[in-house]
Amino acid sequence: MPAYYERHVFFCCNQRDPTEGRTCCNDKGSRDMRDYAKQRVQELGMAGQGKVRINQAGCLDRCEEGPCVVVYPEAVWYTYLDRADIDEIIEEHLKHGRTVERLRI
Amino acid sequence: MPAYYERHVFFCCNQRDPTEGRTCCNDKGSRDMRDYAKQRVQELGMAGQGKVRINQAGCLDRCEEGPCVVVYPEAVWYTYLDRADIDEIIEEHLKHGRTVERLRI
Repeated sequence: MPAYYERHVFFCCNQRDPTEGRTCCNDKGSRDMRDYAKQRVQELGMAGQGKVRINQAGCLDRCEEGPCVVVYPEAVWYTYLDRADIDEIIEEHLKHGRTVERLRI
Repeated sequence: MPAYYERHVFFCCNQRDPTEGRTCCNDKGSRDMRDYAKQRVQELGMAGQGKVRINQAGCLDRCEEGPCVVVYPEAVWYTYLDRADIDEIIEEHLKHGRTVERLRI
């Protein structure tokens, strides 16, 4: 059975209460970056069944290494700083299947 | 590099506005079932790095087939009705790596 999505991408979008005193991905802008990735994948015609799905997820529990995103089925984890990093993950990994080593965690 | 999680499980926990007129996984109890799965995996000592992670996710876009959950890296999708179904997925798939065909979508 072919995979429902060729690549399924989960952005940690967890928001902790500031009183917890522990970092979280959304403090580093993860929701905005997830929205950007989703929009770009749609604009590029890469979204949908048999192609790519961009999802938000709860805490992926790699908070101190974040913001983090994981790409399945390859189980490759990345961090990112800005839209250029997201663009590179989309172009290299999601489009061509090449791991972006410089962003890997 | 070994996978950070041996198995990474995403429960669609999307809640649509009732005025949308479209079904969603949380209308069918997905958040409660995700909480139950997370608790059971912890109780069984299966949670953590190198083991199993249970996550909530946004809409996985298989709404009409839901409630749905996907297990990576195998990319196996399930639906479920009750705690017994969740127990079976935990015991068979997450513990022993055997797909539960009767729940597969």
